[in-house]
Amino acid sequence: MNERLQAFYRIRGDASSIEERARAVAIEQSVEAPLAAIRDPRVLSNIVGHVAAIEDQGGGWFGVRIDLATATVGEDAGQLLNMLFGNTSLYDEVVLDDAVFPAALLSAFGGPRHGGAGLFARAKVESRALTCSALKPQGLAVQELGELAFKLALGGLDYIKDDHGLANQSFSPFDDRARACAAAVRKAVVITGRPTRYVPNLYGHFGQIERQLGIARSEGLDTVMIAPMIAGVSTLQALRQAHPEFAFIAHPAMTGAARVSPYLFAKLFRLFGADAAIFPNPGGRFSFSIACCRKISEALRGPWGGLSASLPVPAGGMSLQRVPELLDYYGREAMLLIGGALLSAPSDMIVKETAAFVRAVAEYRYR
Amino acid sequence: MNERLQAFYRIRGDASSIEERARAVAIEQSVEAPLAAIRDPRVLSNIVGHVAAIEDQGGGWFGVRIDLATATVGEDAGQLLNMLFGNTSLYDEVVLDDAVFPAALLSAFGGPRHGGAGLFARAKVESRALTCSALKPQGLAVQELGELAFKLALGGLDYIKDDHGLANQSFSPFDDRARACAAAVRKAVVITGRPTRYVPNLYGHFGQIERQLGIARSEGLDTVMIAPMIAGVSTLQALRQAHPEFAFIAHPAMTGAARVSPYLFAKLFRLFGADAAIFPNPGGRFSFSIACCRKISEALRGPWGGLSASLPVPAGGMSLQRVPELLDYYGREAMLLIGGALLSAPSDMIVKETAAFVRAVAEYRYR
Repeated sequence: MNERLQAFYRIRGDASSIEERARAVAIEQSVEAPLAAIRDPRVLSNIVGHVAAIEDQGGGWFGVRIDLATATVGEDAGQLLNMLFGNTSLYDEVVLDDAVFPAALLSAFGGPRHGGAGLFARAKVESRALTCSALKPQGLAVQELGELAFKLALGGLDYIKDDHGLANQSFSPFDDRARACAAAVRKAVVITGRPTRYVPNLYGHFGQIERQLGIARSEGLDTVMIAPMIAGVSTLQALRQAHPEFAFIAHPAMTGAARVSPYLFAKLFRLFGADAAIFPNPGGRFSFSIACCRKISEALRGPWGGLSASLPVPAGGMSLQRVPELLDYYGREAMLLIGGALLSAPSDMIVKETAAFVRAVAEYRYR
Repeated sequence: MNERLQAFYRIRGDASSIEERARAVAIEQSVEAPLAAIRDPRVLSNIVGHVAAIEDQGGGWFGVRIDLATATVGEDAGQLLNMLFGNTSLYDEVVLDDAVFPAALLSAFGGPRHGGAGLFARAKVESRALTCSALKPQGLAVQELGELAFKLALGGLDYIKDDHGLANQSFSPFDDRARACAAAVRKAVVITGRPTRYVPNLYGHFGQIERQLGIARSEGLDTVMIAPMIAGVSTLQALRQAHPEFAFIAHPAMTGAARVSPYLFAKLFRLFGADAAIFPNPGGRFSFSIACCRKISEALRGPWGGLSASLPVPAGGMSLQRVPELLDYYGREAMLLIGGALLSAPSDMIVKETAAFVRAVAEYRYR
């Protein structure tokens, strides 16, 4: 555990004070105490963060690398987040850009258990990208969500997930919804012969989620969605450990974009065990840049120690017309998620529209 | 549940498109689907977010109030956060400023169980502010932390908390640390006669925390610290419910400051059950303004439905010299937290320095 965790920040400041500022962040993110208060020489040498590099990036911004002791993480995902940005998130002028993890942390967390490969295997797909849509809007009754799930499954999708806004509301409580949608998808699967997966959205804390997984298991489900920045990253870490049969799709709710690089969140979610991660693709409702999404997809599926690859799930206002462009960019190792655009079709056209999406993905000429 | 939850955003934009932009946020934070995809008239009227007000604040910023259906929260703290800012946190140009909660949500969450009053009662203090310090730096061995806790307790503090960086690291695992520090404080209490409380920092997910509370209970502890944005706000909500004997002090790690008002986080932490909340006071290591801290302390202890008051804990680089100024500002209904400044005293002076802090708080002439 002697190799250090490298944290990369951008700090707004001026050349005359940046060294002092960088040292202050290094202390805040490690011992959080004046050096005068530290009497133990092992703490000074082994635990205090080191400023390893400062680079003037122009425009009043400096790139700063701070090396943190791996032992301070204690193998807990929440504590890793705390070490990277806990108190420093309170500094207006500091952005967390990236982190490089020593091998000891990669093996401690372990990354995706099933990964993209597991999601392809579940869908029995080899030669094309995966397809997904979402059950929405929230406010629909359980029966209506079930009917929608049935139509989407008849269209031949690989995965049908709950909207991330579906939690445990009185209009569609988790237990009833998960049972109804799972049954509806099973009914369609008998007709289509496709192994379509219904993916319920998890809510609440670890104990509640374990109960939800029990219901999912009893309905034969094996893939679920979680928003790690709402549930807590330690929750994802522990679910991966305790429930190896489930694949986890990460949702980006509450990941923000202004102070922590979205790319780093994708990387952390993979590290903590997300088998796929949803993120907003350019040209939809969100403002992530193409460069940012490229970094996200690399973080999810690029080589990284011995970790399995997570599957990129570009989303956020995608349409049927954009399928070829999305596949040009992401290729086969991706899951395309089209939600609202399919659901906007007239009620009796949803199956047909969904089938057109599935066909476009199947018939695309992959390189 | 018909009264709506009011969310207040600041949106950067221009006058010609702000109405459309505000409507887009209202949809993103409710049904997250094109209105064309919504066939159920009850969803359109009861669930879709309403833009209730738009105000030009100058400088290209608009204040926007969006009224959200209370039923969408489903009485889960994480889902409340999701409804307020889940996907919209991904929009660069939107800041979440404030929220006003209908009575149904106040009673569903319930707020602090013990509140500031409970923390005063535990400390048997009536006529002065409370005092607190922190065990740090991380990296110290359990025995060293215990010795430090003993000295701080001999100085007569009301509360001695773990640094928020103390999780479950190999250099001071939670179980050993909590036992050693609790024992050290008990030993000092026999000498001082003061009911000093040791406050361990919780880590990990709900299941792990329940185990940690078991250890705390067996050591006679009744007050603990949690960082709700790391542990997950639903975890705090559930702990408050399941463990009514514990008081919870909220730590602001990962609350950021640039995209969600720190004031709103304080308000949410009170709603979800924090009995006290730590925040960075101006003039220390952080950049929160005086106006922001005033709003935070009002949010924590001002009248709010029937909720108990939480205790403000201004911190972050405070010193003994600043005690009168802090008490001028916060008065008696606060807990002053001085960490590093006390620990910077020479090792054999820590008890004396701590006692001077305790005396300064006791001898201040409260209005």
